[in-house]
Amino acid sequence: MKAAVYYGPNRLEIDDVIEPEPGPGTVKVKVGFNGICGTDLHEYFAGPIFVPTKPHPLTNRQLPLTMGHEFSGTITAVGAGVRGWSEGDRVAVEPIYKCGRCQPCRAGNYNVCQQIGFHGLMSDGGMAEYTVVPADMLHRLPENVSLELGALVEPMSVAYHAAALGEAGAGDTALVFGAGPIGIGLWFALRGRGVEDVFVVEPAATRRQAIEALGAKTLDPTQSDVPAFVSDHTAGAGADAVFDAAGVTPAVRTALACVGSRKPMVSVAIYERPIETPLLNLVLNESRIQGSLCYTAADFEAVIELMAAGIYDTTGWVSRIALNDVVGEGFEALHAGAKMKVLVDPAI
Amino acid sequence: MKAAVYYGPNRLEIDDVIEPEPGPGTVKVKVGFNGICGTDLHEYFAGPIFVPTKPHPLTNRQLPLTMGHEFSGTITAVGAGVRGWSEGDRVAVEPIYKCGRCQPCRAGNYNVCQQIGFHGLMSDGGMAEYTVVPADMLHRLPENVSLELGALVEPMSVAYHAAALGEAGAGDTALVFGAGPIGIGLWFALRGRGVEDVFVVEPAATRRQAIEALGAKTLDPTQSDVPAFVSDHTAGAGADAVFDAAGVTPAVRTALACVGSRKPMVSVAIYERPIETPLLNLVLNESRIQGSLCYTAADFEAVIELMAAGIYDTTGWVSRIALNDVVGEGFEALHAGAKMKVLVDPAI
Repeated sequence: MKAAVYYGPNRLEIDDVIEPEPGPGTVKVKVGFNGICGTDLHEYFAGPIFVPTKPHPLTNRQLPLTMGHEFSGTITAVGAGVRGWSEGDRVAVEPIYKCGRCQPCRAGNYNVCQQIGFHGLMSDGGMAEYTVVPADMLHRLPENVSLELGALVEPMSVAYHAAALGEAGAGDTALVFGAGPIGIGLWFALRGRGVEDVFVVEPAATRRQAIEALGAKTLDPTQSDVPAFVSDHTAGAGADAVFDAAGVTPAVRTALACVGSRKPMVSVAIYERPIETPLLNLVLNESRIQGSLCYTAADFEAVIELMAAGIYDTTGWVSRIALNDVVGEGFEALHAGAKMKVLVDPAI
Repeated sequence: MKAAVYYGPNRLEIDDVIEPEPGPGTVKVKVGFNGICGTDLHEYFAGPIFVPTKPHPLTNRQLPLTMGHEFSGTITAVGAGVRGWSEGDRVAVEPIYKCGRCQPCRAGNYNVCQQIGFHGLMSDGGMAEYTVVPADMLHRLPENVSLELGALVEPMSVAYHAAALGEAGAGDTALVFGAGPIGIGLWFALRGRGVEDVFVVEPAATRRQAIEALGAKTLDPTQSDVPAFVSDHTAGAGADAVFDAAGVTPAVRTALACVGSRKPMVSVAIYERPIETPLLNLVLNESRIQGSLCYTAADFEAVIELMAAGIYDTTGWVSRIALNDVVGEGFEALHAGAKMKVLVDPAI
């Protein structure tokens, strides 16, 4: 079968590889769509970062590996001992390998497992015609949730998890910095959680237009004084929750000037270096910066439920490409900012 | 009567001023002791910062003002309408003026009141023979709590409030960065809250020795790899709560490398400028930075209760001086690092 195999920086090749077959406790999935993630871009252009160069403790796998950890598909074979899943079931895959023994795992927070692995970074992933995954990674897709949406459950769960850590609800005002795929996911998740008053702060006109077309209210931080606007809009109280999905100094500085007393700025960004952070803002109003990483099963289920309810819309920000075009129309187009989210279709 | 009146930078004068008398709802307090706070130092050397130069909205007062917001004393007269307090009652004073109407006040978090004022910064305070305070600022001192300890209730409540935001309890490991008065207060508060395993991280040998003499375990960050020690000590889990009472870049960097998954670094420092903060650490283990400001009445009561239980000890870090010596033996000695905490005794 065809697979996009990662060998190291700037080397992602469409290879003919042996089709995997399911062992005990696993299922074989015919991949519907596989999204390209920012993490994949970092691996391609500057890696290996997460892809292991010696055997990973949970998967025993290392470079070279088939990429892809954001995918949906249809079960085509079921391994020994797997119960509750059958050929033909449509699924989204929650790609976390967890140790189950560390303090975070024991507390149910396996998204911060000390040995965490990802299917598609520490094992052969979804940029292929087929992949084999442990059955405990599977989430069932309702009939009215397409495989295209199914491939977006993973990144939308990253955003949903962050939205939940923001602890905002009906009647609250939220602010999202950055209108990339995670920012868009935050906007959907917040609305799904009943937060109607959401402003997305984004300097790039094309990204503002994309999220405006979905119905979002936006602010251009190069044109308006965002903290003054928020103070005025909230009668001086500040925002109930602020989200940094941008990861740059001006966003952090502005976000912390907008957050209300005893409220959070949730960080769901990969900061490439330490950021000049006005910590005094946190002290003077007892606000906080809360990190957010990945998701757990509950986030996957919540996103799938909201997808079934019609909350998510791929119009204007999601593109589909063939597996053969993954480098040029995928990695390079995303890196150049020409696309926002790309789904690889292994069937074409 | 004698009072230390603040006129502006480097101008604190011992003046003869009119002895205040209590109006409705207030009491007159004969000051037992008044501590000099880091905030007072900032006012003296670089102010006015908090001391208003136009009438404060809650007190209607402005420069010049008698300083002093950390004080204890004995009630000598009671104004009209005051119930529950009598001449001779020994008290600690919680010096916050609050608006009562803003969102934080309505939520009970008047320590982050949008108009907050302090008795001794926005009105005539405790560096005087007498001061008049609203009766709702009073906390009763039990018989076995001295007026010397009573003057420490305010700074110890700052630390206690931060300790509570750390959410650590019995069996947990905590780390305190900085062994100044707030760091010492954190050490007492954590022990008072049942956290036995506390390490105080402090580069200055004299400060380490002072807190060691009280019974604390210390780490010298210039000599030991603190994150490696903490990782080893906690079997890789990291500290359950970390406190920054230092406010400098190396402390923040080290603290965030020590904090466990989904645990807090509580900031209880006045950061003079934005700090290079490794926010990626927060994301990768979903930890948080939580700001802490001042206290509310519950913190005052908790500290007084712990004082009555014998938790607090002034040995080796608290000095007493006469009101006449407040500049040289107080502000300048503290600024030079020759003393850690100075209590002004207006009776000598």
